This record gives sequence, C-alpha cells and structure tokens, in this order.
Amino acid sequence: VDYQHVQVPFEITLWIMLASLAKIGFHLYNKLPSVVPESCLLIFVGLIMGGIIYGLNDKSPPVMDSDIFFLYLLPPIVLDAGYFMPSRPFFENIGTILLYAVVGTIWNVFGIGFSLYGICQVKAFQLQDVSLLHNLLFGSLIAAVDPVAVLAVFEEIHVNEKLHILVFGESLLNDAVTVVLYKLFRSFCEMPTIKTVDIFAGVGKFFVVGLGGVLVGLIFGMTAAFTTRFTKDIRVIEPLFVFLYSYLSYLTAEMFHLSGIVAIIACAMGMKRYVEANISLKSHTTVKYFMKMWSSVSDTLIFIFLGVSTIGENHEWNWPYICFTVIFCLIWRALGVLVLTFFVNRSHVNTITGKDQFIIAYGGLRGAICFSLVFLLPDFHRKKLFIAATTVVILFTVFIQGMTIRPLVDLLAVKRKRESAPTVGEQIHIRFLDHLLAGIEDISGHWGQYYWKDKLEYFNSKYLQKILLREYDQPKSSIVLLYEKLERKHAIELAEAGQLGHAPSHPSLLNNDKTVITDKTLEDTLNSDVLENIQEILARNLYRIRRTGPAYNRHTLPGETEPVEHAKEILILRHKNL
Amino acid sequence: VDYQHVQVPFEITLWIMLASLAKIGFHLYNKLPSVVPESCLLIFVGLIMGGIIYGLNDKSPPVMDSDIFFLYLLPPIVLDAGYFMPSRPFFENIGTILLYAVVGTIWNVFGIGFSLYGICQVKAFQLQDVSLLHNLLFGSLIAAVDPVAVLAVFEEIHVNEKLHILVFGESLLNDAVTVVLYKLFRSFCEMPTIKTVDIFAGVGKFFVVGLGGVLVGLIFGMTAAFTTRFTKDIRVIEPLFVFLYSYLSYLTAEMFHLSGIVAIIACAMGMKRYVEANISLKSHTTVKYFMKMWSSVSDTLIFIFLGVSTIGENHEWNWPYICFTVIFCLIWRALGVLVLTFFVNRSHVNTITGKDQFIIAYGGLRGAICFSLVFLLPDFHRKKLFIAATTVVILFTVFIQGMTIRPLVDLLAVKRKRESAPTVGEQIHIRFLDHLLAGIEDISGHWGQYYWKDKLEYFNSKYLQKILLREYDQPKSSIVLLYEKLERKHAIELAEAGQLGHAPSHPSLLNNDKTVITDKTLEDTLNSDVLENIQEILARNLYRIRRTGPAYNRHTLPGETEPVEHAKEILILRHKNL
Repeated sequence: VDYQHVQVPFEITLWIMLASLAKIGFHLYNKLPSVVPESCLLIFVGLIMGGIIYGLNDKSPPVMDSDIFFLYLLPPIVLDAGYFMPSRPFFENIGTILLYAVVGTIWNVFGIGFSLYGICQVKAFQLQDVSLLHNLLFGSLIAAVDPVAVLAVFEEIHVNEKLHILVFGESLLNDAVTVVLYKLFRSFCEMPTIKTVDIFAGVGKFFVVGLGGVLVGLIFGMTAAFTTRFTKDIRVIEPLFVFLYSYLSYLTAEMFHLSGIVAIIACAMGMKRYVEANISLKSHTTVKYFMKMWSSVSDTLIFIFLGVSTIGENHEWNWPYICFTVIFCLIWRALGVLVLTFFVNRSHVNTITGKDQFIIAYGGLRGAICFSLVFLLPDFHRKKLFIAATTVVILFTVFIQGMTIRPLVDLLAVKRKRESAPTVGEQIHIRFLDHLLAGIEDISGHWGQYYWKDKLEYFNSKYLQKILLREYDQPKSSIVLLYEKLERKHAIELAEAGQLGHAPSHPSLLNNDKTVITDKTLEDTLNSDVLENIQEILARNLYRIRRTGPAYNRHTLPGETEPVEHAKEILILRHKNL
Repeated sequence: VDYQHVQVPFEITLWIMLASLAKIGFHLYNKLPSVVPESCLLIFVGLIMGGIIYGLNDKSPPVMDSDIFFLYLLPPIVLDAGYFMPSRPFFENIGTILLYAVVGTIWNVFGIGFSLYGICQVKAFQLQDVSLLHNLLFGSLIAAVDPVAVLAVFEEIHVNEKLHILVFGESLLNDAVTVVLYKLFRSFCEMPTIKTVDIFAGVGKFFVVGLGGVLVGLIFGMTAAFTTRFTKDIRVIEPLFVFLYSYLSYLTAEMFHLSGIVAIIACAMGMKRYVEANISLKSHTTVKYFMKMWSSVSDTLIFIFLGVSTIGENHEWNWPYICFTVIFCLIWRALGVLVLTFFVNRSHVNTITGKDQFIIAYGGLRGAICFSLVFLLPDFHRKKLFIAATTVVILFTVFIQGMTIRPLVDLLAVKRKRESAPTVGEQIHIRFLDHLLAGIEDISGHWGQYYWKDKLEYFNSKYLQKILLREYDQPKSSIVLLYEKLERKHAIELAEAGQLGHAPSHPSLLNNDKTVITDKTLEDTLNSDVLENIQEILARNLYRIRRTGPAYNRHTLPGETEPVEHAKEILILRHKNL
C-alpha cells in the first residue's frame, strides 16, 4: 500500500464525501431539518468527529487552517451569494446596509472593546494583563456578523425580502471594515508607539479597501463578460470563465490587501446579466448548479471543521471574560441597531418596524470568519482565552440564536417573504413607477437612486451592451418576453387545473373513451365511477405545484427557470394529446 | 502586495485561464482547427511559453510534475472517456481490444526493447553502456499508446465506430500492462540478481493489476449508484457523487498499485445507467457538462505543459538512438497489428480490413503518459537520453502522424462514422437479433457474448436495479419511450420543413395577414413578393439542422439530448401558433 503518494487528494475527497453524506443523512429524516438548522447539526457532527479524533490520538485534532478557509472555502459561498443576490432590494436598501455595515460594525468593535477593557479592570477577575489594544483587537474580530452563518439560518426562515437583505447585505459588506480594523489593531499591537497620523491613515484605508474591492471586482466582471462573447464555438468551457474570473478577482483583492469578499460580490453582480445573455442555456444551468453545489459543500465543510476545531486544548477558560463577551455582543448589537434604525427611519417613508429591528439585532450570528481570524492572531499569552471566548460566542449564536430565531419569527408574526412571483400587472407598474420617479427626480434636481438607476441603464444599453454582448443588435423586446412568460404561465395553470389530459404512459389509455376531458366543471355532471377514474388520472398526471424557492436557498436553484421547464413538459404532453 | 499568500491558487487559476483562452483563440478562426489538430497547436503554445520562460530566466522551465499529471490531470480525462464510452461497440469488440492491449503492448515492449539493445551493440554509436534491462524499461514506457493523444486526434477525424473503439479501447486498457511492465523492469533494475520466480510473479501481476482495477472500480461505481438513491431531497449535491466516487476509485486503485485508469473506467461505466436514472435531469446536465469541461481543460493543460517541458536542458542528444527509437516504434506497432489482426480475422465474420489495420497502426500516438513515466525513472547516467528520445517520439507522433492521419483517412476512403442515429426499425431489429442470438447460443451450448449479455441483463433487472434505483417498480416501457422519441423526431422534421410558422418576436407580426402559412407546397401559387417574405421568415425561424456529434467529442456534449431540447422549443412555438 502506497498511501503517502495519494494522501492529499484522498483525504480532501474523503472530507468532501463525509460532508456530502452528512447532508444526505439529515435530509433523510424530514423532521430534523425543520426543527434544527443544518449548521447546528453539522457543528454537532464536527464535535463528535473531533471527540473521536481526540479520544483516539490523545492530542488536539487539527484546527481549521485559516489559509484553507480564506482561500478555498469562503470564495465559493460568497460567489454564490453575490451571483444570486436579488439586485433590486439590494440597491434599494444600499444606504441602510452600508450604514449598518460600516457605522454599525465600528460601533460594535469599539463598544465591545472598551466595555471588555472595563471588565478587565476588575481585580477579582484576574484579567488586568489584557491591554485596551488587545481588547479592541478582539472586538474587531468578534464584532463582525458572519455571512455564512447568516445565510445558513436565514435561508430557512423565509423572512421578508427587505429584512433578509438588510442582515445579509450587512454581513457581506462589513468585511471591508473588519479587514481594516483587524489589521490596524494588529499592527498597533506590534508598534512601540502609536501616532495620530496612523489613526487617520486607518480611517482613509476604509475607503481604499472597500472601493478598491469594488473596482477590482468590476474590472474582472467586465472582462469575464467580454470573454464570453467569444465562446460560441466552444460551449463546454463557458462555465469555467465565470468561476475563474470571480476567483481571480477574490485572489487579486486579497493580494493587494483589499476586501476579497466585496470584490467577488462586485464581480458576480457585474458580470451576471451579460454572461447570462452570452452563454448557452445549458452552460447557464451548469454554472448555477455547480455554484450551488460548490457553495453547499464549502458551507458544510466549514461547519464540520468548526465543530472539529472546537475540541482540544487550545482554550483558556475564564468565566467572567467569556460571559461578558457574550453579553456585550448582544447588548451592543441591539443598541447599535436601535440607534442606527432611528436615523434610518427619519429619512425613509418605508420604515423598519420594531419587530424587524429585533430580528436584525437577533440575527447577528458569528461564524467561521471570527474563528479563522482569532487563530491568525499573533502569539501572545492570552491568545487561548480569546480562542475560547470566540468559540463560545460562535456556538452561542449558532445554537441558541439560530435555533430560537424561527420560533421567534413565528411568535412575533414577522412579515414573511411572499411566496408567489409578482404578477404581470405589478411588474408593469413597478417599471412605470421607476421611470416616473426618475423623471420626477430629474425635474426636482434631487439625484436619488432612481435618477442614477436610469442613467446607469442608459449607459448600459448605449455602451456596455455593445461591447460585452455577442448579439447586442437585436435584443428581444420586453413585451415579447412578457408575452412568452404569460403563455407559459397559462399553460401551467391549465395543467394544474387538470385540463391537459394524460400522458400516454398511463394504463387507462386502454379505456380511453372514458377519460378524454378532465375539466373540473364537468365533475358535477359525471357519475361517481368516472369521477374516481378522473381523480386517479389527476393524481398521476397533475404536476406538483412548485413554490418559488426563497432567493438565497442553497439547496435548490431559484424557481425562475423551473416554470419554463415545467411548461415545456406540459406542452409536450399537450401536443401529444392533439 | 502579498503575493506569497495567494501564490498557489493564483498560479493554478492563471494556468487554467491561459489554457481556456488558448482554446478560445483557436476556435475564433474556423479554418485553423480543421487543418491542424488542437493538440499540436497547444503543444506549440507550450513550446513558445517554454521558450519565453527559458529566455527570461536563463534556466530550464519547470517540467510537468508526474504527480500532478497522474493525480489531477489524467483522472478527469479518463473519467470523461469512461462515462461517455459507447458500451455496445466496446463490449462487442472487447476480445480484440484486450488482445491489442495486452499481447500487442507486450509485443511492442519486447520488440522495441530488444531491437534497441541490438542498436546499442554497434560500437560506432557509443551506446554500449545502455543495458538490456534499461532498454526494456524504456520500451515499456514508450510502447504504450496514449489515450489523451488518441482521443484528441480521433475525435476530430470521425472514423467508423469499430475502428475508433479498437484504437481508443486499446489505449485505455494497455495501462494495466504498462503499469506492470514498467514497475517490473524498474524493480529489476534495482535488484542485484533476477530470479525466475520474479518473472513468474510479474506475469501473475497482470491479472491482479487489471482485474483488481475492474473490481475496485465496480465497487465504487455500485456504491455511487446506491448513494444517489437517497439524494431526492437535496438535488444540488447529486453531481458531486459521480465525481467523488470515481476519483476515489482511481486513488484507491493507485494506492494498491492497481491500474487506476482501468478502475475509473469500470466505475464510470458501471454507475452510469443507475446514476442517470436516479438523479434529476438538471443534475445530469451538470454532470455531463462539467465532465466535458473538466476533461477539456485537463487535456489542454497537459498539451501545454508538454510543450513547456520540452524546452530546456534535460536532453542528451544521440542521433542513432533517437532515430531508431522512432523507426522501431513504427515498425513494431505495424507488425504487431498485422499479426494480431490475422488471428482476430480468422475467428470473426466481421473482419478488420487492410485500411482499418493501417489506421490502427498509424493511430498509435504517444503522449503525456510516456512523458511522465520517463521523468519518474530512477536517476542513472543515460536518463537524459531517454527523455530526449521520448520527447522526439511524442512530438513525431502528435505532429507528423496527428496532422497526416486526417488526409490519409480521406485518401484511403476509410469507412466513416454514420452521421445519423439508427432508425427505430434498426433499433428494434438489433434488439430482436440480440435476443435471438442469445437463444441460439443457449441452445447450442456456446456461451458467447450474447449469452452473457442476456444473463447480465437478467441479473441487472432482477437484483441490481432493485438495490440501486430509486423507483424500480415502474419503469417506463420501452415502447412508450420509443413513441415519445418518434413524436419529437416528427416535430423536428416538421420544423425543418418550415411548417411551423414563426415566433411572435418577428417584426412581420405587424403584417401578419401575408405570412400565416409558410408551407413549401404553397410556394408556387404565391407571388414573388410574398415568397421573399416567406423566405426571410424561414431564414430567421428555421432551426439550424444539428448533426449528431461524434461519440467522443470533447468540445460538445453528445447530440442525444439536443433533439429533445430542440423539440421542446419547437413545441412551444407551435403551441403559441395554436
């Protein structure tokens, strides 16, 4: 046996296999995922595995390597999040999201840092050796809400779109702030004296890191769109470019110490519409499917590793410090949300309700990013205490908050996501209002979001589309697209009302005379024998009514394309009957 | 800039990007790929890149790492080959393929080894220090026909299916022989004395390595099929299992020194029909597309690396040895094919013609496997000579033989692959004859392929399907499937004859009255103005007649599913008109 030779790929494959099998296992029992979030169960599997490794080897199991996390596990999840980001609610709430992400995160960092420093001054707790700077550094890594954890919980509770995008958008965009503050405090820790100029330089870095990330992302996104113009003759490698360019944008941003998360999101959101127009339908299915698959596996691996890494002897236990960390995390987040929302609500007509505020505050889950950052800390004598506190905060938020948020959402009767897609009338009205508001803004001289959206759309159709799209000269007019959509919808409704008859594979083909028409209006006039027969046919042939999946669900692809496939099947059936 | 941190993934991504862009570049000019095989062009790109690296650094560019090749680049290509292997021609010719792969390869190894040893005895050539064992070792690595090179050339020349499967099947299955002989001679080189028992042990290893590979592959394949029974609730990770299990089979086989190539092919062929039945249509599209994409990229990288590795100072030039290597490779292969085909033809009704024999002999291309094996040789003073000889043989076969084989196929008028799929009548007749022959074989007591096929089919439907398939109780009867196929075909034919009318997106929707019917039979009665209009509509709406792609083409997915999609589009159009 030559295990050495194949060790690396073999072990990676086995880990992925374990993660996939764990996922299948949970979904075998339908009740389990509906009570406990998958993330909790995965951490639990990780804890058991870590315990087994610890028991067998009598030493701490390997902790999750921060490099592996940031270079290989995180990008697929963020790419998936960015690619399937519903752009309309995101841009409508961009101001609020940025406020939460930037001001809110800074508020949390300093709040947690200073109050923990206060705790350290109490002599009874034996924590006097933890300096203010170390507390702030710890605050900077523990304050950031984690996109992976948020996604894992929120995609299962289906709150309304605005609430979702506020929490999720914040968790993604706070990366820029976290990167800056964490690196700033870490370099301060190593500096002998801190000058005022260093602090100002730190503030300037926010903009460089955030906007630089956006710029890098957009450049790679546009290049990706441009590249897919030329793949007509070689369709099989089309999906590759989506992944290659977005990964390159992430790596490039990381290389220049910019925010990789922001870059990959900008890249994915920028390229999406052009790439979709350029590549074939099958390539697009592959892109979507593979992205979902990959992010799903990454996510599973992260939670399992999180569990495994928890076991071991990396921890220094100090009750007061750990308890107060959890308490301060909760308090400062709640205060931050309250104060910021107060200002947001003053300038918006569509306010954030009290219930929503509670869910925003309560949904501030911490996850693997904090965990990786705490292991990246330079060695100092209280590092193990920080690791223990971080682990407890993560487990507390994922287990306690993650498991109680669903009952709370039910209890508070938080507004849910609407299950059905907007009707044609609504869509037309929304578009009409957009144009109207853009006009009003233009006349009134108030350059708000509608004005900029209109300008951007103009710039897009005038220049970008010509460069980035393969067939830019003859875009299908939207009215035709709408008509096709209506036709498909009609076909589905017909099928669901049972007017389509049956597939030829059905055994009742033999007694065909009885079962030609299955219209519901005829039910009353038919005798019970025929009715039974009809019901049987309906049960066999009726298409399960598929709900439109929530926008971020990682287990299923968005419902968008399903009705089309669905309609095709129905049309083929109908054609046969004709 | 922190390049160190992201170096590994960044460089890998860039290499893949280069490979993909090179591929796009070739296909931008349609004439280029039709004259020169892609593999030649890629090696050429590699040579240029190697030259640039050599010129800039003034030292040899890095050679392709054998581990990277065997562990990461080769498996996707072999998986693709195995998964899309047309099983009927493969099993029909399995005897001939095994004869070529086993006896033919041994013949070549010893032929080339001994005759090169003869050349080494000529004093003028200054090669007396190359021992017989080293020559045999060299023979064992240079004799094997390379599946990657064969695939790259043969998928573009579209010879008939039997010829294709003979060359391609041989190139895949000779791996078991190559592995055994290569390792045997290498261990002999390190042994002080060779006993007779070692030689017999070597012969026994053939069976262990080959059959062991098949066994490992089948076990993993069946496990994969079994696993996909339980993925109903979590569709997104379905495609993953196909890749994970086949990769594990390859790694496991390599770990036990069995033939990884044979294992992965057995795994892919074994699981295919069960996995396809279990997973969703979209998952299947993703599997197929991703497999094609991955193998296409691997293949591109291999040829580029081959080019890059050629440049440098790893070579020791010795005209006679290198020239005679090329000559002996050609002669022994030609002789081997002639002799073996003589025996094959004696026991078959459907003989291999002289032209086919020539193409089999001429299609024996060498590629990256030889190249990786020669770098894996233990260090001895003539290693560089072997590297030079191997490089020359690969470049000679890929460039000279690869570029001339297409004109030769044209010139000799070798029987081509039939472009159209078999008709329904043919399919029914084939199946009928299979059953008939199985019956005849059973009665006559001759247990040939039909007998075993029948038994296997019985075993499959009686036991395997029940264990491995999710819904084994209600398989669609084949007559219904046939009917659906016919319906679709009919729809396509209608569309191609222009009887379907037009999509509503067409501008002539405005003057609708003129262009309602576009039947060809009406053309004579219509005036020229209307005719022009009709022709325009036809040109716009007529579906391009898509040819069924050749079975192994790595650039496109097999045509199988296209007509279905195609039919769906047409049916939707037709429905709209109704």
